[in-house]
Amino acid sequence: MPGMASNRLSFHTVALVGKYYAAGIAAPLQELAACIASAGHEVVFERETALNIGLQAYPTLTPQEIGQQADVAVVLGGDGTLLGIGRQLAGHDVPLIGVNHGRLGFMTDIPLSDMHKVVPEMLAGHYDTEQRTLLQAHVQRDGETIFSALAFNDVVVNRSGISGMVELAVSVDGNFMYNQRSDGLIVATPTGSTAYALSAGGPILHPTLSGLVLVPIAPHSLSNRPIVLPHEAEVLIEVSSGRDASVNFDMQSLTSLLPGDQIVVRRAVQSVTLLHPVGYNYYATLRQKLHWHEFPSAEDNRL
Amino acid sequence: MPGMASNRLSFHTVALVGKYYAAGIAAPLQELAACIASAGHEVVFERETALNIGLQAYPTLTPQEIGQQADVAVVLGGDGTLLGIGRQLAGHDVPLIGVNHGRLGFMTDIPLSDMHKVVPEMLAGHYDTEQRTLLQAHVQRDGETIFSALAFNDVVVNRSGISGMVELAVSVDGNFMYNQRSDGLIVATPTGSTAYALSAGGPILHPTLSGLVLVPIAPHSLSNRPIVLPHEAEVLIEVSSGRDASVNFDMQSLTSLLPGDQIVVRRAVQSVTLLHPVGYNYYATLRQKLHWHEFPSAEDNRL
Amino acid sequence: MPGMASNRLSFHTVALVGKYYAAGIAAPLQELAACIASAGHEVVFERETALNIGLQAYPTLTPQEIGQQADVAVVLGGDGTLLGIGRQLAGHDVPLIGVNHGRLGFMTDIPLSDMHKVVPEMLAGHYDTEQRTLLQAHVQRDGETIFSALAFNDVVVNRSGISGMVELAVSVDGNFMYNQRSDGLIVATPTGSTAYALSAGGPILHPTLSGLVLVPIAPHSLSNRPIVLPHEAEVLIEVSSGRDASVNFDMQSLTSLLPGDQIVVRRAVQSVTLLHPVGYNYYATLRQKLHWHEFPSAEDNRL
Amino acid sequence: MPGMASNRLSFHTVALVGKYYAAGIAAPLQELAACIASAGHEVVFERETALNIGLQAYPTLTPQEIGQQADVAVVLGGDGTLLGIGRQLAGHDVPLIGVNHGRLGFMTDIPLSDMHKVVPEMLAGHYDTEQRTLLQAHVQRDGETIFSALAFNDVVVNRSGISGMVELAVSVDGNFMYNQRSDGLIVATPTGSTAYALSAGGPILHPTLSGLVLVPIAPHSLSNRPIVLPHEAEVLIEVSSGRDASVNFDMQSLTSLLPGDQIVVRRAVQSVTLLHPVGYNYYATLRQKLHWHEFPSAEDNRL
Repeated sequence: MPGMASNRLSFHTVALVGKYYAAGIAAPLQELAACIASAGHEVVFERETALNIGLQAYPTLTPQEIGQQADVAVVLGGDGTLLGIGRQLAGHDVPLIGVNHGRLGFMTDIPLSDMHKVVPEMLAGHYDTEQRTLLQAHVQRDGETIFSALAFNDVVVNRSGISGMVELAVSVDGNFMYNQRSDGLIVATPTGSTAYALSAGGPILHPTLSGLVLVPIAPHSLSNRPIVLPHEAEVLIEVSSGRDASVNFDMQSLTSLLPGDQIVVRRAVQSVTLLHPVGYNYYATLRQKLHWHEFPSAEDNRL
Repeated sequence: MPGMASNRLSFHTVALVGKYYAAGIAAPLQELAACIASAGHEVVFERETALNIGLQAYPTLTPQEIGQQADVAVVLGGDGTLLGIGRQLAGHDVPLIGVNHGRLGFMTDIPLSDMHKVVPEMLAGHYDTEQRTLLQAHVQRDGETIFSALAFNDVVVNRSGISGMVELAVSVDGNFMYNQRSDGLIVATPTGSTAYALSAGGPILHPTLSGLVLVPIAPHSLSNRPIVLPHEAEVLIEVSSGRDASVNFDMQSLTSLLPGDQIVVRRAVQSVTLLHPVGYNYYATLRQKLHWHEFPSAEDNRL
Repeated sequence: MPGMASNRLSFHTVALVGKYYAAGIAAPLQELAACIASAGHEVVFERETALNIGLQAYPTLTPQEIGQQADVAVVLGGDGTLLGIGRQLAGHDVPLIGVNHGRLGFMTDIPLSDMHKVVPEMLAGHYDTEQRTLLQAHVQRDGETIFSALAFNDVVVNRSGISGMVELAVSVDGNFMYNQRSDGLIVATPTGSTAYALSAGGPILHPTLSGLVLVPIAPHSLSNRPIVLPHEAEVLIEVSSGRDASVNFDMQSLTSLLPGDQIVVRRAVQSVTLLHPVGYNYYATLRQKLHWHEFPSAEDNRL
Repeated sequence: MPGMASNRLSFHTVALVGKYYAAGIAAPLQELAACIASAGHEVVFERETALNIGLQAYPTLTPQEIGQQADVAVVLGGDGTLLGIGRQLAGHDVPLIGVNHGRLGFMTDIPLSDMHKVVPEMLAGHYDTEQRTLLQAHVQRDGETIFSALAFNDVVVNRSGISGMVELAVSVDGNFMYNQRSDGLIVATPTGSTAYALSAGGPILHPTLSGLVLVPIAPHSLSNRPIVLPHEAEVLIEVSSGRDASVNFDMQSLTSLLPGDQIVVRRAVQSVTLLHPVGYNYYATLRQKLHWHEFPSAEDNRL
């Protein structure tokens, strides 16, 4: 479903971002840098990545500066690494390429062993493009915005670890939906639909779907099922009751929510562009990550 | 979310369609006809409906003729009645109004007790509009199309009642997804997402979402979760193995599928327009049908 | 399935326990006390209950003293009230009768409106008996027991509200089961199976089943399904990783678990005896609480 | 949890049973026979197994004769093979050993590569013992029993492939439970809990649990959750409505059920004894079959 790259010019400045504090990340990062540089691109490093591996051979930039100066960012790590830098680069015109250091990820879809061959090809202009949406959320208390953040995966309002259920009054586009009593509520992007939302019983949303999904976590009412909304929906979650509820935007948490606090979630104006090797198949990734069957099989204990 | 009706002219010819073989349907149908006629509209009856209740006071038309001659159809029955006539009228410019005879439906959202007041108001031009998508499916055997049909709710490929699992090879837009072993696979519209698909573990899709959902029925692989696709997706389901599988398009069944048979499902060109009373709230219907909580509650056995 | 009461003598001393801080509880409690006293029983009040409603007409006892001196306790409140006093009386030979003040409960199965008729009959010896199991759990750190408690519903190990998943290494009877990554793990009795465990996707366990159930909360691995174990199973849960995990025994929480902490759960030696009106049907309660269908129905949108 | 074998004498007559029509089964069956014979046991073959591979070197017996004359049966195949012969030997004092020809099974837990070493040790008296329960079911029409059968996995009442839902009135021990509208209802043993019942959303029951589980298939009411009953429960399922429903006992089907037909399911008097290698761990099998995590892991896209 991802559209083929057309006649875009090849990339000049390539930023490298590595997983923080990952054992053994230095060597492949340096190999990748050398490989990209030898193909004629200018290589810059994300500052923390360079500090982390003690590298001084390349210029270093902050994520902010990468957003302004780089033409593309290559991430070496896991999906978490890509989510982190993706959120920071959202709104800048810097597409992302993900190389996996470890198990194959949903977004870091290039195996380490293939990077020498695949990354230069992509940087030379052979790639498929995919747009990923983000969520913009802000928290209102007594009519004032006390917090706001972007989320790539999900915005989660949940109970504390020691209290009982939270009770959340949920409205969409000004229409009241329900009072939900549960461990919490997840608002997820298609990207986030295969993360926490999936564990909580949500469906998979194809990345190109124009939608987001509300997934209750252990809801008291068994019919409080996941609901998929059009991407232009504005979701308002008000804390009706529950001690010490918190709201989490991917990895950032705001704790000690009070009854009456409102969390407003909508699609962010910013989005993130992922580049995939030509011929990328989202379902192949799902199959591998979720142990789906590829071939017909013969027998088992189900009669 | 449904858009307000603009300055559309009020309706001239109004077709009435009633649930077949429903005890006690004659009296409310006649009251409704009288009520609409007295408001100055021309009333016609769907032929089987008129025959069924022995009514001769109004002209009768086939569904085909209703599609050509009526400006709007008012359905008195349940969601099943509306689905049936909706599928037949798809592609014609005849919107539907649903009055419920029995329990409140998802689409027949006007209670019998309110029809005298609400239906004339709507026919006078006060209504909200909602577009519902349908599925177009055809079955291919040995390269030839042996069956094709529209579905308002869902297209379901499933095992027979006495055989073991079917095995289905599923592709989307030419990309292979998986070999699924299960009782069957449901491809549902947003309308169908609250029907069989919900029972099988699928999410609710808001009617305005541009998407469809694949929901496996009792899949052998526990990670074969529901997946929501963009509405332009073309789903190809090939029967890999399984005796006597069948495919069901809403209520029409094609039995005795053979290994190698392919079912191709995509969004239909035709759609159905529903009219709702002004201020219609989809979530209010969900709340009532699914016993969702409206008000905060006090205590229960969950500590 | 509950066995009929045999030739047990009628009860002499009857303790009354009321829901704390419940508006409107005073009047029905006093009516109930008068009704029981007039039937010739000696009425005593649980101390906090009497203080709470400002009642001085009857002797008051602590739960401990009730355990030693009363022949039966009548609880007026919700299931939570019965769980609380039940846990305190566990091990004493004091059966419990539950009158519901509000919505029907799973255990407080006598409606307020019937109490005048039903409770005296039961105290005169006409009742069905049901035994409910409890869990005994203790927490070990560095080889020492740092906490121990009884649970009527469940023992829950879960993440804090702001951290990511916990990782729990679970063994049963010394056999390693798995490393589970999730929001947490519920170990529930049959009584608790209709509480939090049900919300998290667990099955209902009939109260007379000799078993307990492990229910993961939003597990990362989709195949980490609920598992029902024989009641003599000893479950060992070790915190492998996760910041600020906590363990909850019904309502009591122990916070700030450390990696390496072990929670050992087994069936308690103590149990609780519930008395039901003759002819009690557990399924009737389930039907009412869970909106199950009693009668065949006619039509809906599932075709 | 399985108890250690005590001082039982070693086995004299050993019956071999192989999977039918399985490519490549002849060679390992003959090797296994030779290996067992050389350890001093008398080897006999199940008749169809011998015919199937054209073997004439050993005496052949019908399953009935094996039940009377053999001391133990070694099954080489999959779980389906073991289920089939197990049901036929139920009630005879012939324990079963399962060697897997293909993927590891839940019950055929000895890999082909280990059979030369493990099987002779077990036949020499070193094994763990596990008892598996079966279901006894019969179908009543107009007061007469028209069919009865044993089931090792499950008894399933379900709709036909082309009709809508069945409606089933379910009672347990004479107490009415509910009218369930669904694709069908599974009554499963602990053995069957990891087969079809698991696909339909049921819990795993440990083999030593004294219970059985009812699992609805795609129930119309979302709160019709799986329910685990004590093993002495008698389940009565009456077909309230639904065309062409059928009932399936493991692999045997009875079709064309009529409204009013009743299926009565209870634990069978007969059971099946499985022998496992010493140190057998049920959870290790679950881990492998269900892809559960054995070791702590490092990172993924769930933040």
